[in-house]
Amino acid sequence: MPATSMEELVSLCKRRGFIFQGSEIYGGLQGFYDYGPLGVELKNNLKAAWWRTNVYERDDMEGLDASIIMHRMVLRHSGHEATFSDPMVDNKKNNKRYRLDHLVKDQKADVIAKVAQAMGQSADNFPAVVAALNASPAQASEALRAAGVRDPFSGEVGEWTEPKPFNMMFKTTIGPVADDESYGYLRPETAQGIFTNFKNVVDSTSRRLPFGIAQIGKAFRNEITPRNFIFRVRELEQMEIEFFCVPGTDEDWHAHWLEKRLTWWEDQGVPRSKIEILDVPKEDLAHYSKRTYDLMYDYPTLGHEEIEGIANRSDYDLGSHTKNQSELGLVASVEENNDSIAKLTIPHPETNKPVVPFVIEPSAGVDRAFLAVLSEAFTKETLENGNERIVLKLRPHLAPIKVAVIPLARNREEITDVAKKIKADLQGLGLGRVLYEDSGNIGKAYRRHDEVGTPFCVTVDFDTVGKGEDAALVDTVTVRDRDTLAQERVKISDLSGWIQAKLR
Amino acid sequence: MPATSMEELVSLCKRRGFIFQGSEIYGGLQGFYDYGPLGVELKNNLKAAWWRTNVYERDDMEGLDASIIMHRMVLRHSGHEATFSDPMVDNKKNNKRYRLDHLVKDQKADVIAKVAQAMGQSADNFPAVVAALNASPAQASEALRAAGVRDPFSGEVGEWTEPKPFNMMFKTTIGPVADDESYGYLRPETAQGIFTNFKNVVDSTSRRLPFGIAQIGKAFRNEITPRNFIFRVRELEQMEIEFFCVPGTDEDWHAHWLEKRLTWWEDQGVPRSKIEILDVPKEDLAHYSKRTYDLMYDYPTLGHEEIEGIANRSDYDLGSHTKNQSELGLVASVEENNDSIAKLTIPHPETNKPVVPFVIEPSAGVDRAFLAVLSEAFTKETLENGNERIVLKLRPHLAPIKVAVIPLARNREEITDVAKKIKADLQGLGLGRVLYEDSGNIGKAYRRHDEVGTPFCVTVDFDTVGKGEDAALVDTVTVRDRDTLAQERVKISDLSGWIQAKLR
Repeated sequence: MPATSMEELVSLCKRRGFIFQGSEIYGGLQGFYDYGPLGVELKNNLKAAWWRTNVYERDDMEGLDASIIMHRMVLRHSGHEATFSDPMVDNKKNNKRYRLDHLVKDQKADVIAKVAQAMGQSADNFPAVVAALNASPAQASEALRAAGVRDPFSGEVGEWTEPKPFNMMFKTTIGPVADDESYGYLRPETAQGIFTNFKNVVDSTSRRLPFGIAQIGKAFRNEITPRNFIFRVRELEQMEIEFFCVPGTDEDWHAHWLEKRLTWWEDQGVPRSKIEILDVPKEDLAHYSKRTYDLMYDYPTLGHEEIEGIANRSDYDLGSHTKNQSELGLVASVEENNDSIAKLTIPHPETNKPVVPFVIEPSAGVDRAFLAVLSEAFTKETLENGNERIVLKLRPHLAPIKVAVIPLARNREEITDVAKKIKADLQGLGLGRVLYEDSGNIGKAYRRHDEVGTPFCVTVDFDTVGKGEDAALVDTVTVRDRDTLAQERVKISDLSGWIQAKLR
Repeated sequence: MPATSMEELVSLCKRRGFIFQGSEIYGGLQGFYDYGPLGVELKNNLKAAWWRTNVYERDDMEGLDASIIMHRMVLRHSGHEATFSDPMVDNKKNNKRYRLDHLVKDQKADVIAKVAQAMGQSADNFPAVVAALNASPAQASEALRAAGVRDPFSGEVGEWTEPKPFNMMFKTTIGPVADDESYGYLRPETAQGIFTNFKNVVDSTSRRLPFGIAQIGKAFRNEITPRNFIFRVRELEQMEIEFFCVPGTDEDWHAHWLEKRLTWWEDQGVPRSKIEILDVPKEDLAHYSKRTYDLMYDYPTLGHEEIEGIANRSDYDLGSHTKNQSELGLVASVEENNDSIAKLTIPHPETNKPVVPFVIEPSAGVDRAFLAVLSEAFTKETLENGNERIVLKLRPHLAPIKVAVIPLARNREEITDVAKKIKADLQGLGLGRVLYEDSGNIGKAYRRHDEVGTPFCVTVDFDTVGKGEDAALVDTVTVRDRDTLAQERVKISDLSGWIQAKLR
């Protein structure tokens, strides 16, 4: 039984050290989050699982880790300077600025209905209402005012300007002189680092079509209204694949990746039944896309929201970044490029003639994945004794702590020595973090490790060290299973094998 | 025998896909580099090795992953707004700008001697020359001109301005409105994310002194003159620990960490004999430091340069970021802070009274570590047959590819099927990347894998599948050792165990 509200996830994340507000001691910075001691482990485990499946277990994939700050020409020719923008409106009364679609969506139903009507649209088709507002700025301003759209900050009806596009890229000056040419952008998607390195990767690996390049890394989007915890943030992390294939085979590869990605989500504990596949309507497609499937996960409180986009980017990107565009028979419509010094082609595997490949892009958000995985794992149970417990039923490979080793008495050296030795041995197995846990009493420790999803707790007690009642229990420990609550007595000499068998 | 010049490392990195220039297809962006297919693996392996030693194998460490963009108040109270700057001078003839110390250091010896003399210093003590130039800007400008300091761009003697401080932080606007308060900085060090989360980590983990927080992540410094490949870059990655301890125990912990860190470097193949420990002179210490050891690695071409700094930051940072400073008996001299909403203290483990801990900070650069590890592993050997080979003798845990599985014939299914099965089995061991290698002939494949440091090549041939001469070799493969060049015939059924024993 997954989480039923975002609030219970937010509360758990803060309490147990998964996620904190960024720059919190100075009042926080909107849209920025810090991953705490358990968050960093879960996030790293998720990224490692993605890398394992998509790079290591395939024979047609290379990895990459490109820089975050990129040349302004990269983001000009990618189309982001011109089109990576959201329409926004200002309230002239207090100079507050809002993203248009978020502003309208947050109004009461009757206000939304009035806006829709004024724009000649049905309130049931919200994207069409937004599209109409963008298409007729003057009419939009009038409609927002007439419908009585309120400012979420002041609570009063606003004096709304016409919607204007706002570019969401973070810009910064590079080098000591701030002039018209000395700036770059923080990448808004990791993808561009892959396209600009296409030739370098081909030349250094001798890859032939079809093959892909995978990358995990930070991306930055200056969202006007960041919201919903780590769902819509300004600093995010992406796991992206650009899969290069022969034009004409792109639709088959698109289907291949849709299937592969759903399987991967399932392996992380996010079932297909919770993901709706949205075949994005033509009019809503991004500027580079021939066709896109959005995987819409059913988040608590938020409902269905995008957790991954799988786009057919055609030959748009390599075509945009290449020189000699006119000689290459591009299918996509691209802007002229006189800045690139590279010809981004590869020999066709059959004809050997240079071809600009098509690209399939499965692009998942790490933070959104984190939230989905956490949500699915979150479980409230009523135990036999009537008590309630919260337990994170994470897949073992994702659990931030694999095993907690608990000495029953923290001041008895014969016990702590054995516990520390066991901790070191289990840590040596290379399965992930093993924690030596002497921070409180055993009941508290179990509750804590249920809440953070530790699959096994190993307790070293007086019996273990021959100071208990039962001589048969010497050199054995109690292993408690997170999910079944079963406690089993295991020989220390068998423990590594026992744990390994359960966690692999 | 490690690398003898930077050039041979740069050339290998480009040729084999370790590192590419950032935004290269648009002429490149100075100070930014992209890690290619092999670079990302080596870098991830290095980071994992650091995390394993410093987080997993200790019982007094927590991890963290904070955001890159931080609140301007964080960087104000950390001291970076005021002091994180380098003096620079302009050449009025062409408006080029240079970092003062780099400019002077790159002049011919007689020019440096003249500058030193004009400033009343000995040329042998270069830091003193730079300090004198900074202390007397007017005299400095005069000294540079009189000594005939040349502009590296034009090659002519420059008309030099007075040195002025230039803040090295990258700044960017956050949110839709660019005004005096709506900006933040890209962190110049990961450390600040640790200090600002000190309270959050303590509250969510119940840690008591002494304990540390470890973090790996990007940091950004707008260097005036980035140089020396990935040694001095504008986008870098750091591995930092802030270790919090009871005041008075800080010097012992400082010694502890110096020793631990040298051991770690040794485990990565960087021997102590190549590292000089610089006890940084008082006058060269950073604004926060009570004492600092710089580990100076002997890079090819560059000579001894900093690979890690281990600083005693006293109670400066937590003291700077805390509220109620005056009540806390701080030792460090800090600026007044009326912006922080948190009291950054922890109970003293003996008295239970709130105390601001001292901090020991081992801070290593990932990129600099990468370069040192590569340099130590780089080997040119003359073989018995007189041929020369380049081989990267990386420690196995750092090697980008652990095993290459090579089918002797790429178009014979009975061979490729077995090779693919072996690849999948070895990959499943979880040791890192295993590559299915069918990109060329066997000799070329061996040469390639020597150059990229693959410890073992496994070849599947006709004998393996019973189509060869020797029936005794059925179901066996040839395993070639990178370092010894020995080739051993191993049963496929024994292969996993054989490889695991060698690589662990």
